[in-house]
Amino acid sequence: MPLTPEQQAEIDALRATPRQTLRVVSDGMERHLYTAYDVLDHGFVRVIDYMGDDNAICQAARVSYGKGTKQVSQNEGLIRYLMRHWHSTPFEMCEIKLHVKLPVFVARQWIRHRTANVNEYSARYSILDREFYIPQPDALAAQSTANAQGRGAVLTGAEAERVLEILKSDSARAYDHYEEMLESEEQGQKLGLARELARMNLPANVYTQWYWKVDLHNLFHFLRLRADAHAQYEIRVYAEEICKLVADWVPFAYAAFEDYRMGGVTLSAKAIECIKRMLQGEGVTQETSGMSKGEWREFEGVIG
Amino acid sequence: MPLTPEQQAEIDALRATPRQTLRVVSDGMERHLYTAYDVLDHGFVRVIDYMGDDNAICQAARVSYGKGTKQVSQNEGLIRYLMRHWHSTPFEMCEIKLHVKLPVFVARQWIRHRTANVNEYSARYSILDREFYIPQPDALAAQSTANAQGRGAVLTGAEAERVLEILKSDSARAYDHYEEMLESEEQGQKLGLARELARMNLPANVYTQWYWKVDLHNLFHFLRLRADAHAQYEIRVYAEEICKLVADWVPFAYAAFEDYRMGGVTLSAKAIECIKRMLQGEGVTQETSGMSKGEWREFEGVIG
Amino acid sequence: MPLTPEQQAEIDALRATPRQTLRVVSDGMERHLYTAYDVLDHGFVRVIDYMGDDNAICQAARVSYGKGTKQVSQNEGLIRYLMRHWHSTPFEMCEIKLHVKLPVFVARQWIRHRTANVNEYSARYSILDREFYIPQPDALAAQSTANAQGRGAVLTGAEAERVLEILKSDSARAYDHYEEMLESEEQGQKLGLARELARMNLPANVYTQWYWKVDLHNLFHFLRLRADAHAQYEIRVYAEEICKLVADWVPFAYAAFEDYRMGGVTLSAKAIECIKRMLQGEGVTQETSGMSKGEWREFEGVIG
Amino acid sequence: MPLTPEQQAEIDALRATPRQTLRVVSDGMERHLYTAYDVLDHGFVRVIDYMGDDNAICQAARVSYGKGTKQVSQNEGLIRYLMRHWHSTPFEMCEIKLHVKLPVFVARQWIRHRTANVNEYSARYSILDREFYIPQPDALAAQSTANAQGRGAVLTGAEAERVLEILKSDSARAYDHYEEMLESEEQGQKLGLARELARMNLPANVYTQWYWKVDLHNLFHFLRLRADAHAQYEIRVYAEEICKLVADWVPFAYAAFEDYRMGGVTLSAKAIECIKRMLQGEGVTQETSGMSKGEWREFEGVIG
Repeated sequence: MPLTPEQQAEIDALRATPRQTLRVVSDGMERHLYTAYDVLDHGFVRVIDYMGDDNAICQAARVSYGKGTKQVSQNEGLIRYLMRHWHSTPFEMCEIKLHVKLPVFVARQWIRHRTANVNEYSARYSILDREFYIPQPDALAAQSTANAQGRGAVLTGAEAERVLEILKSDSARAYDHYEEMLESEEQGQKLGLARELARMNLPANVYTQWYWKVDLHNLFHFLRLRADAHAQYEIRVYAEEICKLVADWVPFAYAAFEDYRMGGVTLSAKAIECIKRMLQGEGVTQETSGMSKGEWREFEGVIG
Repeated sequence: MPLTPEQQAEIDALRATPRQTLRVVSDGMERHLYTAYDVLDHGFVRVIDYMGDDNAICQAARVSYGKGTKQVSQNEGLIRYLMRHWHSTPFEMCEIKLHVKLPVFVARQWIRHRTANVNEYSARYSILDREFYIPQPDALAAQSTANAQGRGAVLTGAEAERVLEILKSDSARAYDHYEEMLESEEQGQKLGLARELARMNLPANVYTQWYWKVDLHNLFHFLRLRADAHAQYEIRVYAEEICKLVADWVPFAYAAFEDYRMGGVTLSAKAIECIKRMLQGEGVTQETSGMSKGEWREFEGVIG
Repeated sequence: MPLTPEQQAEIDALRATPRQTLRVVSDGMERHLYTAYDVLDHGFVRVIDYMGDDNAICQAARVSYGKGTKQVSQNEGLIRYLMRHWHSTPFEMCEIKLHVKLPVFVARQWIRHRTANVNEYSARYSILDREFYIPQPDALAAQSTANAQGRGAVLTGAEAERVLEILKSDSARAYDHYEEMLESEEQGQKLGLARELARMNLPANVYTQWYWKVDLHNLFHFLRLRADAHAQYEIRVYAEEICKLVADWVPFAYAAFEDYRMGGVTLSAKAIECIKRMLQGEGVTQETSGMSKGEWREFEGVIG
Repeated sequence: MPLTPEQQAEIDALRATPRQTLRVVSDGMERHLYTAYDVLDHGFVRVIDYMGDDNAICQAARVSYGKGTKQVSQNEGLIRYLMRHWHSTPFEMCEIKLHVKLPVFVARQWIRHRTANVNEYSARYSILDREFYIPQPDALAAQSTANAQGRGAVLTGAEAERVLEILKSDSARAYDHYEEMLESEEQGQKLGLARELARMNLPANVYTQWYWKVDLHNLFHFLRLRADAHAQYEIRVYAEEICKLVADWVPFAYAAFEDYRMGGVTLSAKAIECIKRMLQGEGVTQETSGMSKGEWREFEGVIG
């Protein structure tokens, strides 16, 4: 359970006090504000704030004075047009602020998306909680033999048990020692190592948390890479949870994103040429395609 | 008058329809939403949206679950501490979206601040209005003889008249010709030059407009440089107008910004050394200071 | 002629003094260093400096200690793989610094690419030259009737003459007045308006210049958008000139860019579905495609 | 010893093959290219490439055609002026690419500097080495009692021994288990957990490595924060090593940085007011200063 009763009470208090605003309001997003959605065994994603909605994307694209068109269908068409033609700036006019709790090795992938604002819980300043990611049995995958950075079959039986035993016992011992090193002399204890040093003993499955703020264009970029089937499972589940929130926040933009980005495919000049030949009835093979074996395999995956 | 009655009606409509939200609300900013504040002869600044308030800065700095401390004085102290020690990320957690109308030569300076989101009115797609910046008489400054990129005394009399005459007549002629080149054949006219070409005839004092979205940290950086006495007058008046809005939006953060950034001064190691010597009673001169003449002059300006 | 004899002599002097370095050297790029390649009537592009080559992309991707593999074909394959799978960071490890002279209205489009470093010639500090972009007759296009931000047929005869007459005479008058306003009292002249004010009279076809530094990933993004057939002609010719330089600098990376980006196409989920149906012999029409008319037209353009 | 003989041989090979270039060369930096300078127990910093020198900063500031002024003293003065007046773009015209080996907890601080390009060794793709940061005895500091994120006295005797024992044994056990989990079935072993999962058992003192590329302006920003006395010791030693390299690369810029940034101090409006009063002979105390106790303490530290 990621939240303590005190934390849940703080969230409930925030959700109990609606106020008046003149700003654009997304009813779909108001429903989610502050609520922590569980991800992995101790993690969560929750929306702290947002700016804009579908309409705001169009308003910015038109640099308009007021709300702009009243016809909802025009906004949908414009949003699809903007997405299709890579007009990114109108999508940057929406912003979201999330509070995320996540294992450190996931945080290390996540932070590589640079165009975002981050405030992370500081382990120099504060003491981390005893919370470690221990995979569910069906996430205990073997190394893929085909893909150097992928997963293969799920481990089972004694093998799986041994992995879980290692992860659990090493996490527990690391945290026991973290606490031991932090114990201060003032409390009649032996040690009182600086927090900024003691933390180095904690493994990468320890949980951290941060506030993460990003505009919608850059969020879509993050989601395309991290909600993708090739992303590591442990970050993908966060991306998928965020996808659900965004679908309620900006439904037109999200639908366009699904069609043109998540479900879309970029084909090379060679691949387009092959499709043209195939549509004219020619039987194209890897040998006659001009593509390498790897490219051809990926191409077959797209049109197959 | 920068706004047409139709535009004003659109703004009034937006201001007349408050809605409920669970988000953080800044009452100081709600008062300003959508209202266009005049800048220069045809320009304006108006707030389209905002995210966060003083409290949100502290909440992010603490990565907290709820509202955090109830003691307002603690928040003020924390904000001052963060500003003093250059902790920039909590200030990035607030965001503002402005609609700005401004002369092109001002826009060209403004856009150099890269960490922001911009949607500009497109002169490839649309036709610009007949609006040009013509300085007020007291802004008609001569070139500074001391500072290669500064202003000197105000021009007067026949000189001032001649400058205004040039600016007005060249603007008018350029716009007449812009319209002439755009006239399409379908309307029985001679020309119909592409808008993306015709615009090249318009001078840099023509007005453009854009939506500009920026986080509070980067906005403060913009304001420090552009509300500064050395900034060009025509961009400074925009920065000063924005300062007023920010002071109402995040009063603690703005006060800290005024004290530590706008009113603050960065002194070199040499300058600090001189101050120490002077406080011990030594009479330091430029020759004994280790500073160049330019540095010494600036130093005297600070402590004088 | 964009360069004066003095400027050409400075370039010649730089090209005459090779030095020794331990850094990676791209022979293809060394040939171009400092040389100004003409673009439009008074503009140019020239390479001031570069960092890295094809090999450096692979070295970074492998985080390797030395030069890495000796087999050139492996590097080519890796570069194509990185480009195909959107691994952007290795391409960021190459950098280029250009000196560009360009009309202001082109500079205003160019600067929208924010992830780059720019030093522009300052018209607050210095006086601009009397150089204006006047289109060649075949670039004098009418407004497109189909595309709000595109060009149609070329203007001819009296119409074209009138446009050129306007552009030339307005440029000349604007510059005459610019000079008149700048004339200082010290020289016994009437006026001496501040340079930062006088420049506002200059139209958007006046030339400016800047140093522009960008990494290869962001340069490819710029080139994909600006060397594209939909880009405005006046910026496209700059992008095309840069393409030639990049092809000589990093030939493998540029070939991959041409195949996967410039010549590549992103198809939506709906479009991929249609291709699958068509390859199975089904006759798909716009009505049965699930696409809007605009999307279907673009789709036909790709596979037709 | 951070480098194997094979790695050292690769570096030696690179240093043995100078080539000709027309680019700007910094002799001070050529001496350091590729050489790995030790930091901490297994880490290093080494320069892979660089672009520009002191002269290139001035050339960009002047947007000049050739080398610009021959007078070295003019360049020094210009660089000091640019640094003093926060003109950042000319410094962005120099670029450096480093190969750094560093503990993960240091990498996590480092990566927060977003305006840089990074390629990190992938523990999804590759297996990390058995190398962990174990502090030297004099770096084993107790938690500061005055500063929540600082260090106090050095631990000694049994306390220090116990900390080192914990760090060493937990690192060794974590790596043994990492290897055990990675062992594949094909080799007749029990387990073969995916690398992207197995890595989560490794503590934050394990070493990683990356290529890190940054422009000089952003590097100075990094160095100001990380070579500062308040930075954590383990990142400060990297920053200090980089400072030495930069001092040889761009000596004028580095000297200006030392005087105006590293050794400089930003004083608030209130602090400047106090200095003026003190210089006029007034005895100012915290109570009459208008500053909080914390601010006054820091102010005394500056002028004391």
